[in-house]
Amino acid sequence: MDKLWTLQQTSFSPLKLQHNETVFMQGNGYMGTRGAFEERYPGEERTTFVHGVFDDVPIVFTELVNFPDWLNIEIILAGERFCMTDGQLLEFGRSLDLRNGLLNRKVLWRSPKGLTTSLEFKRFVSFTDVHLTCMQVTIIAQDYNGTLEIRSGLNANTDNLNYKHWEWLGQGFEDQTIWLKLKTKSTKIVAGMAERLQIVGETALESDFWDVTGCPTLRLKTTLTAGHPLQIEKVAAIFTSRDVNDPLEMAKNKLAALPKAAWDELWNPHVLCWEENWNKSDVIIEGDEKAQLALRFNLYNLLIAASRYDEHVNIGAKTLSGYGYRGHSFWDTEIFILPYFTFTQPDIARNLLSYRYHNLPGAREKAQANGFEGAQFPWESAGSGREVTPTWVPNPDDPTKLIRIWTGDIQIHISADIAFAIWQYWIVSGDDDFMVKRGAEIILDTARFWVSRAEWNQEKERYEFNKVIGPDENHDHVNNNAYTNYLVHWHLQLAVQLVKWLKKHDPLAATRLFALLELNENDIDQFKKIAEKIYRPFDADTKLVEQFDGYFALQYIDLKALEGRKESIQGMLGIEKTNQTQILKQPDVIMLMNLFPDEFDLDVIRKNYQFYTERTDLTYGSSLGPSIQSIVASRLQMVDQAYAYFLQAAFTDIDNLRGNAEDGIHAASAGGLWQTVVFGFAGLRYENDGWSLNPQLPPTWKRLAFKFRWRGEEIKVDLRPERYAET
Amino acid sequence: MDKLWTLQQTSFSPLKLQHNETVFMQGNGYMGTRGAFEERYPGEERTTFVHGVFDDVPIVFTELVNFPDWLNIEIILAGERFCMTDGQLLEFGRSLDLRNGLLNRKVLWRSPKGLTTSLEFKRFVSFTDVHLTCMQVTIIAQDYNGTLEIRSGLNANTDNLNYKHWEWLGQGFEDQTIWLKLKTKSTKIVAGMAERLQIVGETALESDFWDVTGCPTLRLKTTLTAGHPLQIEKVAAIFTSRDVNDPLEMAKNKLAALPKAAWDELWNPHVLCWEENWNKSDVIIEGDEKAQLALRFNLYNLLIAASRYDEHVNIGAKTLSGYGYRGHSFWDTEIFILPYFTFTQPDIARNLLSYRYHNLPGAREKAQANGFEGAQFPWESAGSGREVTPTWVPNPDDPTKLIRIWTGDIQIHISADIAFAIWQYWIVSGDDDFMVKRGAEIILDTARFWVSRAEWNQEKERYEFNKVIGPDENHDHVNNNAYTNYLVHWHLQLAVQLVKWLKKHDPLAATRLFALLELNENDIDQFKKIAEKIYRPFDADTKLVEQFDGYFALQYIDLKALEGRKESIQGMLGIEKTNQTQILKQPDVIMLMNLFPDEFDLDVIRKNYQFYTERTDLTYGSSLGPSIQSIVASRLQMVDQAYAYFLQAAFTDIDNLRGNAEDGIHAASAGGLWQTVVFGFAGLRYENDGWSLNPQLPPTWKRLAFKFRWRGEEIKVDLRPERYAET
Repeated sequence: MDKLWTLQQTSFSPLKLQHNETVFMQGNGYMGTRGAFEERYPGEERTTFVHGVFDDVPIVFTELVNFPDWLNIEIILAGERFCMTDGQLLEFGRSLDLRNGLLNRKVLWRSPKGLTTSLEFKRFVSFTDVHLTCMQVTIIAQDYNGTLEIRSGLNANTDNLNYKHWEWLGQGFEDQTIWLKLKTKSTKIVAGMAERLQIVGETALESDFWDVTGCPTLRLKTTLTAGHPLQIEKVAAIFTSRDVNDPLEMAKNKLAALPKAAWDELWNPHVLCWEENWNKSDVIIEGDEKAQLALRFNLYNLLIAASRYDEHVNIGAKTLSGYGYRGHSFWDTEIFILPYFTFTQPDIARNLLSYRYHNLPGAREKAQANGFEGAQFPWESAGSGREVTPTWVPNPDDPTKLIRIWTGDIQIHISADIAFAIWQYWIVSGDDDFMVKRGAEIILDTARFWVSRAEWNQEKERYEFNKVIGPDENHDHVNNNAYTNYLVHWHLQLAVQLVKWLKKHDPLAATRLFALLELNENDIDQFKKIAEKIYRPFDADTKLVEQFDGYFALQYIDLKALEGRKESIQGMLGIEKTNQTQILKQPDVIMLMNLFPDEFDLDVIRKNYQFYTERTDLTYGSSLGPSIQSIVASRLQMVDQAYAYFLQAAFTDIDNLRGNAEDGIHAASAGGLWQTVVFGFAGLRYENDGWSLNPQLPPTWKRLAFKFRWRGEEIKVDLRPERYAET
Repeated sequence: MDKLWTLQQTSFSPLKLQHNETVFMQGNGYMGTRGAFEERYPGEERTTFVHGVFDDVPIVFTELVNFPDWLNIEIILAGERFCMTDGQLLEFGRSLDLRNGLLNRKVLWRSPKGLTTSLEFKRFVSFTDVHLTCMQVTIIAQDYNGTLEIRSGLNANTDNLNYKHWEWLGQGFEDQTIWLKLKTKSTKIVAGMAERLQIVGETALESDFWDVTGCPTLRLKTTLTAGHPLQIEKVAAIFTSRDVNDPLEMAKNKLAALPKAAWDELWNPHVLCWEENWNKSDVIIEGDEKAQLALRFNLYNLLIAASRYDEHVNIGAKTLSGYGYRGHSFWDTEIFILPYFTFTQPDIARNLLSYRYHNLPGAREKAQANGFEGAQFPWESAGSGREVTPTWVPNPDDPTKLIRIWTGDIQIHISADIAFAIWQYWIVSGDDDFMVKRGAEIILDTARFWVSRAEWNQEKERYEFNKVIGPDENHDHVNNNAYTNYLVHWHLQLAVQLVKWLKKHDPLAATRLFALLELNENDIDQFKKIAEKIYRPFDADTKLVEQFDGYFALQYIDLKALEGRKESIQGMLGIEKTNQTQILKQPDVIMLMNLFPDEFDLDVIRKNYQFYTERTDLTYGSSLGPSIQSIVASRLQMVDQAYAYFLQAAFTDIDNLRGNAEDGIHAASAGGLWQTVVFGFAGLRYENDGWSLNPQLPPTWKRLAFKFRWRGEEIKVDLRPERYAET
């Protein structure tokens, strides 16, 4: 077992079921399954989500649908049901091999009647054949002979936090394979599932099909002989009508085409595929084993979250790993997660940006509904690309009262964030084809949204963006959020440059795009004119950028005095009160300086970093904070601080630092973590002209190595600080 | 088959499943089961609700929990599953015998492969042993010999409109009996269910137990011989932790105590019990068969809705018959439904009023939370007696927008309605014991609420009730709703009289009650003083009572011009706009005159009836309207109009006149219907001094006969209009 690659759990804790389910997550970019145990336990939250399979639900509008569970298997040993909370758990160990996503559990269990059995469970979600999962259980009766009974079913009654999304359409049994056909209630997505269960190398003494509607179940019986290992294998297939015309037929055929014992056939290409992924996307740290493992854990979670095939899905704020945010995507993708793929697997980045391209109709609809022009991307986006931010949610303290969620209405910076990510992808990949065919349309139509959204302040002779929410969500309905205004300024300038480039690079495409968007030269002039006159707050005396109009006048709160708290400042003070303080949920001005390091002198960055850091709730505010703090600290040569924030991001989920890891992986934090290493410690900078490195590694790191792709070329970075060169 | 007692359905309509489920409802005052078929069909809404078993749910706060279905049985005939939408349905008939609640279905079915089978299904919910249900299926293969397979399970995954309330606790199988143990997720009510399935007089050739977690299923196999009837019997038992300490044990024991073939043992006392109920509570109409049957249908639904045993449950606006209003109770009980029980089965009325007594803590909590004193009853009430009116519900046209429901905040008249019902019960039953022990406490503590809620208008020197909703819910936040003000006036006067009576009748009880409620003589003086000065709108010139301040100035809309519409005026115009018109959802001033006929001259009643009737949306407004219109029309000797409104109330559910019968029985309309006959056509009036009759029957009615109880004595009314005396 390689400590640098293996996440381990050495004791079973019934009270931490849900946290460990998040940590022992498996997936392949098509589906994701939480690390629930094969047998069921009260208080678990077992889910399997498939990308793009959303369905309507009250309050949060739409959510990823929990699929019938392919994990469940009930093991009855000489009449006693295996359950780790009954009898005695003599040995327990679980590990997730990040190299290949293999989840392994070894248990030595003494039953209530005193019979001892060793059980080993292994399972993986195929990375090559993404519709397939495979599981093996090896059972050895230690001190008895007796019957072994195995039950495994597919449950159409699976729910999402008590809410049922599936309509049962049919089920059956053929050739040791049970199948189930289902449809989501509102979105009418059909799913076909099949699973095959067998005792490897043996024929079961008895084999029953329990044809209970909604729960087709297969039961096998055989005999256990003391000391003689018995192996069970289960393979399952999932297809939906988003993938193929007849998902059930495909699922059945997929299993029928597998050899009788399928593990090896599925495992070998799966491992190769993982190797290939890590070869492109790994980051090696030497001298800091904890950091190495935690970083890989986060990268693993990004690699299993991104679809390789489907341009119509994105990555949710919690990937496919839990109910948090119900699978909705935010700017987290473009600003936090995408750089990892843009730099290491640009094909995936292109896919994710194409999701935004395909969802331009939803963005246009949103702009129009709000009385604006062009395309306004939704703050939360799911299957349809329409705005799916909940508008009102029950107040947890008094459900008769509701809380208004404003982000879907006024957190407008996401449209510029998407433009930024497209630009970044273009610069790094050199993929002109994408820019011509998809990127430019997004950048120009969102630019047009800014034109219609900008407000002219006659008195001050400037354009403003009022009543917005910036990255810092502790303050809503603010005027002239610095991040938003600077970003729009940059976005409109980019649009102007892009039009120039496009006309030169592909005049026909430029003409077509102008016609499609009904753009003319006046519009481009308008972009330029507005960009010039957008108000970008900056105080030349103090060198501070005021986060929004009036921020400096808000109440100061000494966060140090509140250390040891276990909840966010917003949770402690309430929404209204927090709005009136300077406390930030996450970096806002610092985020701006992170995205545009060349726009600000180091001295300006340092002053703002110092000013805003002590005002930011970095422990229980947004999990998007620490990674950004780390990168900027690295730039300021404050490597100790940078490393402390790196650790905070790295262990967010493994150590459940924020107390909500059960809701799923903090994906933006995971993406930000890669940036702390590559943009922060390695100091990678990029521009039109090329890239550069300016490394400053944490003291204990003996080596930092990674690869990235620059315009089609693979770049290998291998940094070994001089201080260790002699050892 | 007695046409005057039997509801019939002669054709199977897959598109009207839900309407017919409501119409063929069965129950026994403990549980209620919709008339779903034994085999499942897409689009059905099969529910079994048990009184008092509520659980938390988003938006509507709490709802009756749908129980695992005791109906389901799957019949596989020579390998083909019986399903009326497959093959050919050669004959179909269904009937509900209102005399005893027996539901019967006869089917002649030709399978897709051409085999013909006759099936008869009979079932009832025991009226004597309220935890038990019983079902028989008689199967005759017409033209083949083959296997018969029967499957029947208990499904813990049962949901309420997609929302799951049950946590599975355990299941098993013993002696041909399967069992299931469950718990509601929030309210932690444990349910134990057991069911026994057998082939009557035979041993099955095969008998399997399918131990699928959450769906324990029993399967029997035997052989069908052409022409030879085979009978299946299923009995099921339901207990909950609201009833007994160990509900599962009770359910199992209950079945174990039954003889092998249990139908007759359960059926005979059940029929006697029904006879007894009808003997007390039937109403006989001769000369109008449709009216007779429809009236009995409505009375049947009241008889199966009321608990005989449990003082902690009420009757929901849709009884136990559907999801409408989620089992919540309103003033519908006290003003519409209760009179039927008060006059024919006062024990049930006492039970229902005791529900309010037991829920005084919730009413006091509500008053206090709103800054008032005493007890303010919730507009919607469920298990806990706390206010459970939804505050915000999604706008069906745009779920990102919400609609604020104000009735829970300001539809305050319910506290006086409850006082009215207690007074009515007391007058009619003469049950001083109830008044002393329970009624007086409610009346006085709600009176104290009125004192704190009344607002003194200095300028006009009167007490007012402002910002309220009256019975007519088309207008909210109105000032001085006539119904509310008159009723509070009456309520406070009653309180004063009641104190006098109590001091005389039971001085010790009076002293105790004063101490308990911390009342003193000043408070009683205050009741009197405020009662005298409450503003009760009346215009001596026009003789009109203005429904609320400013009503007359609202926009008049000619409802006649909108005849043929298929939705309510509120649905057509929207809430805001309707608020600005004179259109009423239901009678308000006329409702007042219905409750207090002696307070108003006939001329005043007539003028107000004429004025308000043409402004009331009686077709698609509230189903509470027609019965009240009918009673008042009878008093005004307008028997044709009274009869037309009677028919409208009588056929509300049978003919689905309002297009929403699928949500459940319109219970207030059913209760109001009894009042149209007894208070309307028979002209029954009652006061402290006694009762009187002033009949005027619809022209076709040859006889109207009913019984009621007056202070312990049974009164038989048998009216045969003179015009028919000679025939």
